[in-house]
Formats: sequence, C-alpha cells, structure tokens
Amino acid sequence: MSNPHPELKAPPKLPRDGLRVVALGGLGEVGRNMAVLEHRGKLLVIDCGVLFPEEHQPGVDVILPDFSYLKDRWQDVVGVVLTHGHEDHIGGVPYLLKERGDIPVIGSRLTLALITAKLKEHRIKPRTNQVAEGDRLSLGPFDCEFVAVNHSIPDGLAVMVRTAAGSVLHTGDFKMDQFPLDDRITDLRAFARFGEEGVDLFMVDSTNAEVPGFTMAEKDLAPAIETVFRTAPGRIVVSSFASHVHRIQQVLDAAAAHKRKVAFVGRSMVRNMKIAQDLGYLKVPRGLIVDAKALDDLPPNRVTLVCTGSQGEPMAALSRMANRDHQIHVGEGDTVLLASSLIPGNENAVSRIINGLTRWGAKVVHQGNAKVHVSGHASAGELVYCYNIIQPRNVMPVHGEWRHLRANADLAIRTGIDPSRVVVVDDGVVVDLVKGKVAVTGKVRAGYVYVSGGAVGDVTEDELRDRLTLSQQGTVTVVALVDAETGRLTEPPDFLARGLGTDEKMFEAAIPDIEKALAEAAGQGIGDPHELEQRIARAVSRWAMRRHRRNPLVVPVVIEA
Amino acid sequence: MSNPHPELKAPPKLPRDGLRVVALGGLGEVGRNMAVLEHRGKLLVIDCGVLFPEEHQPGVDVILPDFSYLKDRWQDVVGVVLTHGHEDHIGGVPYLLKERGDIPVIGSRLTLALITAKLKEHRIKPRTNQVAEGDRLSLGPFDCEFVAVNHSIPDGLAVMVRTAAGSVLHTGDFKMDQFPLDDRITDLRAFARFGEEGVDLFMVDSTNAEVPGFTMAEKDLAPAIETVFRTAPGRIVVSSFASHVHRIQQVLDAAAAHKRKVAFVGRSMVRNMKIAQDLGYLKVPRGLIVDAKALDDLPPNRVTLVCTGSQGEPMAALSRMANRDHQIHVGEGDTVLLASSLIPGNENAVSRIINGLTRWGAKVVHQGNAKVHVSGHASAGELVYCYNIIQPRNVMPVHGEWRHLRANADLAIRTGIDPSRVVVVDDGVVVDLVKGKVAVTGKVRAGYVYVSGGAVGDVTEDELRDRLTLSQQGTVTVVALVDAETGRLTEPPDFLARGLGTDEKMFEAAIPDIEKALAEAAGQGIGDPHELEQRIARAVSRWAMRRHRRNPLVVPVVIEA
Repeated sequence: MSNPHPELKAPPKLPRDGLRVVALGGLGEVGRNMAVLEHRGKLLVIDCGVLFPEEHQPGVDVILPDFSYLKDRWQDVVGVVLTHGHEDHIGGVPYLLKERGDIPVIGSRLTLALITAKLKEHRIKPRTNQVAEGDRLSLGPFDCEFVAVNHSIPDGLAVMVRTAAGSVLHTGDFKMDQFPLDDRITDLRAFARFGEEGVDLFMVDSTNAEVPGFTMAEKDLAPAIETVFRTAPGRIVVSSFASHVHRIQQVLDAAAAHKRKVAFVGRSMVRNMKIAQDLGYLKVPRGLIVDAKALDDLPPNRVTLVCTGSQGEPMAALSRMANRDHQIHVGEGDTVLLASSLIPGNENAVSRIINGLTRWGAKVVHQGNAKVHVSGHASAGELVYCYNIIQPRNVMPVHGEWRHLRANADLAIRTGIDPSRVVVVDDGVVVDLVKGKVAVTGKVRAGYVYVSGGAVGDVTEDELRDRLTLSQQGTVTVVALVDAETGRLTEPPDFLARGLGTDEKMFEAAIPDIEKALAEAAGQGIGDPHELEQRIARAVSRWAMRRHRRNPLVVPVVIEA
Repeated sequence: MSNPHPELKAPPKLPRDGLRVVALGGLGEVGRNMAVLEHRGKLLVIDCGVLFPEEHQPGVDVILPDFSYLKDRWQDVVGVVLTHGHEDHIGGVPYLLKERGDIPVIGSRLTLALITAKLKEHRIKPRTNQVAEGDRLSLGPFDCEFVAVNHSIPDGLAVMVRTAAGSVLHTGDFKMDQFPLDDRITDLRAFARFGEEGVDLFMVDSTNAEVPGFTMAEKDLAPAIETVFRTAPGRIVVSSFASHVHRIQQVLDAAAAHKRKVAFVGRSMVRNMKIAQDLGYLKVPRGLIVDAKALDDLPPNRVTLVCTGSQGEPMAALSRMANRDHQIHVGEGDTVLLASSLIPGNENAVSRIINGLTRWGAKVVHQGNAKVHVSGHASAGELVYCYNIIQPRNVMPVHGEWRHLRANADLAIRTGIDPSRVVVVDDGVVVDLVKGKVAVTGKVRAGYVYVSGGAVGDVTEDELRDRLTLSQQGTVTVVALVDAETGRLTEPPDFLARGLGTDEKMFEAAIPDIEKALAEAAGQGIGDPHELEQRIARAVSRWAMRRHRRNPLVVPVVIEA
C-alpha cells in the first residue's frame, strides 16, 4: 500500500500506453464522489457528488470537489458517467456543467430523470445519454460497458471501462441483496466474465468494508414495518430518504394492506416519488395516494404520512413536527417510523427529534428499537466474494473514510492480492496504470470547495477558522478615535462585544495596553490607520489571553479625528 | 404519566406529611444529574454533576444545574449524597460548595477520594462523611441506608431514604453484572427487603431502558482484549475513561500475562489510577507500571500505553497522537484499542481519530469491529427484574433523555404499576409524595448554567444564539460617521466583515438603505447615536436578507462628526 502522506507534486506526463486515475472526491470521506480517468489525452469522469458538512464547517450548505485539476482541460472531457442518483454522486453535476454545459451526461433511466429534475432547478438542460445494463458505449478512447448493481436506490450501474492501456471496473455504490424488491440483483455473472477477461484495476465501494458478514435483505424489513401498521392505533408518520424508492414501496404496500391512505410531504419527497411512479419504479395501488390536505377528513387509523427529515435536518417536515412548528400536530396515539439509516454525525439531531416526538406522546420506531433499516452497501463478506470472482490485478478502494478504505484493502490482501498492487490513497493522488501495474506518480489539488449561502468557493478554510473562533469565543469590535497629529486616543475607545459571554466593559481594563501600542507606533513614526488597527487588535488579543485566557475575534476600527 | 409540558408555576407549600422531589438535572438529558428531596423544611441533595455541551453550544466547557431553586435555602441543605464518582454525578460539587462550603458530602471511599482530589484543584476542602453498603446515616429528617450497586466505576451506591412521609429508593447509576471483577454485585437482596418493607417512590436509572435484554458482563470483554495482546506486533495503546478501573484492570492483567510494561499517559488517568491503586481498587503486579519515558528503552512488543481521549477530546493524548502532535508517534505495527463506549454526539470526533491513526498505519480496535466495550447501565431486562422485586408504589425514571425516561416508564407500566403512579417529568418539575401517591404540583427554574472560559453563568441562551449566528453567517461591523447637525453620513461607511464567506465590498450596495434609514430618523428628529445604530443594523440586516438571503450579525458603530 502507498504512502498515505505524499507531497503535493505535479505528476509526470502520462505515457501513451498508460491510464491515469485521480479521485477528486470520495477518498477519505463519505461523499462528493468523483473519479477522473485519463487515457490518450481524453478524460472520463465517473460521478460528481456533494459532501455534507460536519459541525466544524458551520454555515456550509454542501462541499464540492475542487475542479481546478480540470481547468484548461474541460474540452478533453468526453463524458460524465453517473452510477446512480444519490446526491453524493450527482449533486456536483450542476456546478460541473456550469464549467462546460455540453459535457455528455451518461446514466440509467432513473438516474437521468433525477439529475435532469435537479438541473432544471439550476436552469440547465443537460446533454444526456441513457444507458442500461448490458449496454456498451464508446466515449473517446474509453469503451464503457454497464452492469446492473443493487443499491438503496433503483437502477444503479457499475461500469467496466476498457482502454488500450487496460481495463477498470468501477462498482459505483452497491450491495448484493439476493432478493431485491425489483429482482434486479448485482450481476455477478458479468463480474465473473470480466474476471476471466482480466480486470486491471478494480475500483470498489468501501463504505461498509469494516462491517463483518453480509448486509441484510431489504425485504427482511417487512415484518417490522408490518408490525407498525398492524399495531399503530392512530396516524403513522414514516420518514425516509426521498430517494429510497424500495423502502417507500414497502411502506405503500403495508399501508394498502391495512387500508390506510398515504400522503407525501416535503418538496423532494413529492418530486422524487412522482418521478419514480411515472417511470414505473414505484408501483402505487390506485387511490392509495391522497393530497396531504385530504387527510384531515380521514380517521387517524386510516392515515399515513411519508416525509423527509430522517437525518434531523432542521427545516424538514419531521423536525418541524417534533418542534410543533408544522401544521401536522403529532401527539398521543401517533406512531413515527424512522425508516432509514442514521448517517454518522447526525446522531444528536436525530436524537433531538426522537425526544421531541416522544415528549408530545408519539411512539417512535427507529433502528435503535426495531429492524427498520438495512444499509445500501456491501459488507465485508460480499466484498470478499467480489475479489474472489474478479481476481483483479490491482485494487483501489473508493468511497469511504480512511478507515473504510484501509479495511477494504485488507480484505483484498486477504484474498491473495499482492499488497503492492493495492493503492489506498487520498483525494487528488495520481495513480497511473502502466503495463498492468499501478503506481502513485503525484498529487494534484483536491481540497474542499464550500457552497455557503449560494456562493461557491468564497468561504475559505481561513474563514471557517474565523467562524469557529467567533462561535467559541465571540467577537469584540474596538472603536478608537485617534488624533492624526499625536497618534494618541482622543477619548476612551468603545468596545462592542457579541457572543462573548461576559460584560464588554471588561475590556476597559485593556485601554492602557491600547495606549501603549499607539504610543509605540507614534514613536516609530507610524500613523497609517490600517497599521494602527493591526496593532490595536494585537494588543487587545494579547491582553484577553493573558488576563482572561480568552481569544475573541477582535475587529479594530481606527478613526482619525 | 404527567403532562410533559407544564407551565412554570411555583409549587404550593409542602404539607407536613409530604415529601417533595425536584430534579435540577438529569431529566431530559444524559448528565448534570441532581435531585433535591425536601421534607419538614430540610433538603437532601443526591448527586450534583455536569453535562457536556453539544455542537449547538459552542465555546461551552460544561453545563451546570441551575441552583436558584436553592437560593435562600442553602442553610436547609443537610447533605449531598454522591452515588458514584463520575463527572456527570460529582462535577458540579465544586460549584455547589462555593455557595455553601460546609455542606456535608456523603459517599463511598472511592467516590470521596475522587471528589476530594477534584475539590483540591478548586482549593476547596470538603466536609466529608464516608459510608459503605449496609451503613445507615441520619441527615436531618432523612434516614439514609446505602446499598451496593455495580456500575462502570467501582464503589457505586444506591440510597434508600426513609422519611415520615414515605421512602425513596434512588438507584444512582447501576447495572446488574452477575460476575463483576470485584465480586461486588448490585444487592438485589436489599432491593427485595425494601420491597417487602414498601418503597413509596422508586427513582431509577433510565440510560439503557431502550436497550432490550441484559447488559453483557465486564469479564466478557477479556477474549477481545486478550486477542489484542496476543496478536499485536508492536506497541499497544489503550484508550479508556480515566475512571473505568475495572476496564483498566483487565488491560493490566493482559499486559502482565504477555510480559508487557504499562505506562499511564494523561493527567486525569495518572491521578485516578494512583487513587484507585492506593485504595486497593486497582491491583497492580509489582514492576508492571513504568514511567512513560522508560518506554523508549523497551522493544515495541513490550510496551503498553494507557491514555485518555477515547471520546475524541481534541486536547487529550489520543487525539494528539492521531494528529502527530504528541511525543509518541503512533504508526505502522502499533495497535490502538479504544476500550470504551462512544458517547452519542462524539461519533465524528472519534471517527476522525480512527481515520487519523489508520492513515499513519496503526491498527485500530474499537467497539465497531471487536467486543471491547460493555455499557455501565442496566438494560430493559434488568430494569424489569428490579420493578418486579421492589414493586414500588410510585416510579420516577431519572437519568436520561426523554426517550429513555419514557421507555423506562413503559417498562414499569408493563410490570403492573398504575400509569398514574409513574411520573415522567422534566428538570425542575415539582413532584410531591403525599399519602403514598405522587403528584406534579409545580415547576421551578432548572435551566442550563454554562461554564465558558472559566466564567460561570455569564453565557446566556441569547449569547449562544449570537454565537451560532456568528459561526453560520459571520459578522459585519458598519462604521458610520454621522454629522451631528444634519444626521447624514459625512462619508461612505466602512464595512469590516469576518467569517462572511464573501467580499465585504458587497455591502457598499447597502449604503442607499443606510442613507434612507438615517434620513427617516432625521425626519423624526431622532439623533441619539444608539438609536441610529439600531436603525442602521436593521437596514443592513434587511438588505442582506433581501438581496443575498444572508443574515450576518451586524455590529453598528455610529460616530458623530
């Protein structure tokens, strides 16, 4: 395995018989998945997703891959292949197409329907190319063959990319449910055929590589869902991902069996379920779905609401129900079913919702007290099957934090793959496949690009640091009127504090330090207001740390009087 | 069960034959546990802990119970009983004793040793009263009998409080490990005896009430710990709570069996282990413990480090090792064992550590991939045993979020206790036991008191809201020089932005709105600088929201020229 801490170093020119792989996202994080393949001067992009921020990235809406590696090379991009329709695989496409609008977007029927709906909101009409399992498509020097894979959204695809320099099999996100609702299983026959032909590089989903055994079947949730519908005395509120068509299919089936009506609540849920129904992915019994308003006329035990917000998103319907900030007042007799996974990092938000709903008297059924969720990703047992069926020449674990990538690599090595042919690398690390062997040859920029309040890339790491300081220490503005002649204060400075957790008058004790700083500046003949502001800020910061062990963000204002 | 949303209403005078219970913490949260019992004008406090902040409470060190209910009544407090030595039960005692220093502190030998060491750091010498299981102690009108309970720290006690108005059995934190390392099991014989005598109010730990079945035995971790010590090729770094004496005992035993030396790293770990060893709770084979510096002279496969930081605390040894910011460079060949639970809310921080250590090449063993932790709290199965053995007349679930309290109440009701005798209430709700039956009679202040940067209670909810706005939206200071005569700007205002994620020049487009606000004020004859500042802030905020959907914290400065 490779050095996980390489220097940023531009890679050498790719040999003509070489294939280059650079992930601009998805290595070292769960999200913003994006891989760029290069061969004979052309580039093929696989997925372009977003990453959701953590608590140390306040005010950030989503995080994009850094496209600067593609700068000056947009014309070489022959297409972007989307493996499936989840945000962490398609959410970056609008920003990609703003760089070059006519890049062909390749994907399955449902995936293209979802990205097209998303792009419509951005007023972008993409050039699409719909494919299905079994299809082959030439994109410049890349010959792509698409393979059915099973995941927590229908119509997922893996892609086998053949080039003159060798072949790459990229799984996308997948698992191996042997009894999926749509009978569309991950096509191990195709994997076996590729294995016989020879796979030079296997790029494989790592999300669940740490989890031993096999991921349970989606259908195994039916008993727990059935129990909710059989026993709930009043309304049932189900919260799930707006893209989890099969989970919602199970809920619809249970509702129909128990003579309940169903209303979808929340913009993305309504939109996606309409798409899924129109395209035939969601099968809806006639008369089952009603408008949310029509529910008022039904007795509670005939009502089912299906909404978003299962991750505790504060603006989503479920969170607002928990805060009684929603027209639907959940209370005694109601049952809330959280039919989705808990994405790491959302524990507190989800727990707040469970507590809020429970306080109002609702019964909450969730993965902590019932079998109401299975993962969408292959566990270690399934991954080992893949390694043994495919027997790839080289392996590059993708989609996961470092721990997941490393666990996946360990599985590959246990099946007999030479450790020197297993590359565990970060985003931006350049991996070249030449003469059938992978090697790390450099590193390119692959930092976080923050979308914050609609603006892309304006929030920098420095500004996030400022935001964290502001949130932990607050801020104090120091307004100093300075005599332009003498460089001295004409009156005591004003102090305006916010979020400081202390009386702003405290800072009056720092005035001698400010006076001293100004006197020093005057002694050195310095009168530039900007320079005086820097010195005042430094003096106040030092004083606050020395006297109070505090480090507020100091905003200095010098006005010459 | 009671109304979970009562109005804040002062309770009536307690009848002479009544017993009042008010929890000032621990109901609706996991932490700052504190119950106040009142009878015949005297008060008995059970536990006084801290709560650790969540991500929406930035810059907060710990959260205390609000003591204002005890204001003017400190002289009535006959003692504070500490059930065990965890921070969420003893961390508030220094602040309590700052209110009245001579309140007797009652607890077991280890508990008193831990609180005395903590108080020493606050330069407080407490008046202590050491008790053990089986002891009885009269504290004013409260006759206390102490009972052994098993928990994730040795020497835990439950307390049976008998008064003329009835009896209260408070479990503290407990579980029912039938094979604990110290053979000190939860004394169900005593519980049975109390049941025969009659327990009027059972206050019972709810932390694990949602978890079905029985909590595994501490000794059942031995195989996983043994596997680590048998197979680790290099150093072993174990991270655990500094108070988990039995977990660390198991690590010491494994180290001794495999001829490794052990060094403790981290101030609280060194301090607590010395206390535990001195008092005989930790049994240390001669020559096993060495100074951390002495480890350099040993081969890696003879080294064990035991440190704090298992919750991802950024300043603790483990986090610094993950960032290579610690003298001990963990890397290839090293094994890190996280031998503790993951407290909800710390998932991201712990995951960052696992990823960091894995990137450096270490193998990380944690509760996600090995059986290296058991909980310290009774699961649903154990709680049901208690209800059936004790058959209490009334039940008040304590220690937990609302979901835990409610789950515990449901268990009580399933064992046959009348729902009207099960009170699920929030902090501050007044519960009176009169003539053998509980009733909610009022509510007192029980808000959060924040300790932030050493200051107690200075950070308010408003200021936390400011901090969150600052972190998500940043701040802009507007400096306006205003002509005292005309009320108009003498020059364009200055804008100083921090954490805004955008160019501060953007705000220049808001100048017309500022001019308009000033003109309006002048028209109304308003010249007070403070009022002008409010108007400028409002104008800029509205402009930012209207034009940019942003809501930065605006700090206005008006200077009359």
